[in-house]
Amino acid sequence: MQADKKLFTPGPLTTTYSVKQAMLKDLGSRDDQFIQIIKNVQTKLIEIAVFCSFEGLPNDEYTVVLMQGSGTFGVESVFQTCTKLDESNVLVLENGAYGQRIEKICKLLSINHKVLRFPEDRAIDCDAVKSFLEKDNNYTHVAVIHGETTSGALNNVEKIGQLVKTHIPNSILIVDSMSAFGAVPVDIQKGFIDFLISSSNKCIQSVPGFSFVICSIKKLLSFKNNSRSLSLDLVDQYENMLKTNQFRFTPPTHSILAFKQALDELEQEGGPQKRYERYSNNHEIVRKGLLSIGFKELVPHEEQSKIINTFHYPNDENFNFEEFYKRLSDKGMVIYPGKMTKASCFRIGSIGALFAEDMHQLVQLIVQILRDMNVKIPIQY
Amino acid sequence: MQADKKLFTPGPLTTTYSVKQAMLKDLGSRDDQFIQIIKNVQTKLIEIAVFCSFEGLPNDEYTVVLMQGSGTFGVESVFQTCTKLDESNVLVLENGAYGQRIEKICKLLSINHKVLRFPEDRAIDCDAVKSFLEKDNNYTHVAVIHGETTSGALNNVEKIGQLVKTHIPNSILIVDSMSAFGAVPVDIQKGFIDFLISSSNKCIQSVPGFSFVICSIKKLLSFKNNSRSLSLDLVDQYENMLKTNQFRFTPPTHSILAFKQALDELEQEGGPQKRYERYSNNHEIVRKGLLSIGFKELVPHEEQSKIINTFHYPNDENFNFEEFYKRLSDKGMVIYPGKMTKASCFRIGSIGALFAEDMHQLVQLIVQILRDMNVKIPIQY
Repeated sequence: MQADKKLFTPGPLTTTYSVKQAMLKDLGSRDDQFIQIIKNVQTKLIEIAVFCSFEGLPNDEYTVVLMQGSGTFGVESVFQTCTKLDESNVLVLENGAYGQRIEKICKLLSINHKVLRFPEDRAIDCDAVKSFLEKDNNYTHVAVIHGETTSGALNNVEKIGQLVKTHIPNSILIVDSMSAFGAVPVDIQKGFIDFLISSSNKCIQSVPGFSFVICSIKKLLSFKNNSRSLSLDLVDQYENMLKTNQFRFTPPTHSILAFKQALDELEQEGGPQKRYERYSNNHEIVRKGLLSIGFKELVPHEEQSKIINTFHYPNDENFNFEEFYKRLSDKGMVIYPGKMTKASCFRIGSIGALFAEDMHQLVQLIVQILRDMNVKIPIQY
Repeated sequence: MQADKKLFTPGPLTTTYSVKQAMLKDLGSRDDQFIQIIKNVQTKLIEIAVFCSFEGLPNDEYTVVLMQGSGTFGVESVFQTCTKLDESNVLVLENGAYGQRIEKICKLLSINHKVLRFPEDRAIDCDAVKSFLEKDNNYTHVAVIHGETTSGALNNVEKIGQLVKTHIPNSILIVDSMSAFGAVPVDIQKGFIDFLISSSNKCIQSVPGFSFVICSIKKLLSFKNNSRSLSLDLVDQYENMLKTNQFRFTPPTHSILAFKQALDELEQEGGPQKRYERYSNNHEIVRKGLLSIGFKELVPHEEQSKIINTFHYPNDENFNFEEFYKRLSDKGMVIYPGKMTKASCFRIGSIGALFAEDMHQLVQLIVQILRDMNVKIPIQY
């Protein structure tokens, strides 16, 4: 069998073989073993959200709702369920494509909203958020992205949460922590986060198939019978699971088996903190390697998430991204195109079952391919 | 490793080991190999829908849109995208829980609708549909279930489609063929079906993870910019795939790899017709076995789908379904509870990687367990 390519991408990502092997089993959705696995998975996710580790005490203030589909399905489920038409007014703090996606959801769902825009190559400026909220706090919800995968910028959601709590005490804070949760430290209580969304195939290092919403039970239940979608009704999904231990609709059984294994491996690695150390180390190896040959990065170092990093294209007529991508891919290393509206960039992810050696190999291969493409090194801008 | 239990359920079901093994690979969602697999899968699904085999010519009238999530997500995507608020009026032909689910979707989505109800232990009476449509044809859409998994009744969707075409020529026919497509013969053209929904983990015999909607391109495109959901916008999903060869949001890559393998195995088995012969044979073995010891089935024989069958509980105080279920499950055979509103029943599915021998073993085990439970054989009613 051909070896898998290494995915230096924000997910689907490279998982361990043991995570994939966990899928070699057909379990019925009513099966006791499957029900126990779901409970185990839920407990561990809440521990990560509340304690940033697996060592916390049980917490009955928060729950986690698993939702079939990709991460965006999870994000939309929060808006379909937990906003009220006519009554709600959402403030979207936007600094990239994923903030814009929340804006699009609000538009399509006819939810009143305002977008406070920030530059796409920087983390959100908390002072600007503070100034804004001092003048205008007429919102029922605030939504923000944790790690903006568009650029790799990390937004300080705990600080934003504290500002929101101060200026709009009764509002609901929604954090899309898709590519950050499970590694980047976040304290859902300290950040006054009411709904935090992530998905199976990011820092937990499992395969795609579902998203999950960690949320305040009280806030969630205040939106009972409010959803404009059946599939994406978070309250119905929560209440049915509580009552029957089962999903309302066919769960992605194999994907959940893989996720259980991935959570076990996260714990074995030492929990989110240790994982984030590995990702940060991965990130720095590529960063230093590419900066040393002249590449420029988009986001200031101190505002980077360590999850993914964005580099400008070299200003060299011999550089062609599709060719560069293909040559790397042919050698078994997959990177990611840019998603900037203004700058021509590519991205390199640090997450998944990737280690220092993989990152060094990637840097070496990039140097070799640039030479083969007759791109001048050091890179010119 | 413990052997998997056999799942006599309507899905998630027992898949072959080779289908599960296809998931032992991480592919990037931009990967050429992955893109080719999606194209291959799409072509084969349309062939099944139009020709009931893999031997048809290319057809450019229909397309297939893959949608993340379970089958219900696929069904809801049709209603979120392809109905217009205020303008649409849906006639739901209902004879069980899945018809009622469509009713629930219409309610939650605020879509005008009327439900024509039929007994839950029978296939839909086409003469009654005809009489109804002769008097009232004020509908823009008609929705019906193909194989009602609630009971195992098979609705004649081709005949219903012809009636709808005759009485409401410009209406849109939506068929939920979740547990029938890929085995039970259906001709999307002959039945004038505009939208047919099924999912990965039914008769194609793959793992859960996504649903698919086979539809008329013309009808689909008439609902551009109409969806009240981002995730479930069928047109947007279709157009983005056409333009970029990629999903809009993270695809369930592993689940799609398994599905490709499952379609190959369906072709190797001789296509949907041969598969339906095997399922029908499976069905008859259990049917004859259980009738021979006195069980009574719910749906008249000639109206059964051969996908799943429903049996009344024995009228015996020693019979307890949960105990019966548990004993079967402990011996590695998983059946399904009933879903009737009126009758106490259980269900046995015939689909998945199950063969005559498995069905004989199930019947033998049922006899043995009933004896162990001191349930009188032949069964008393």
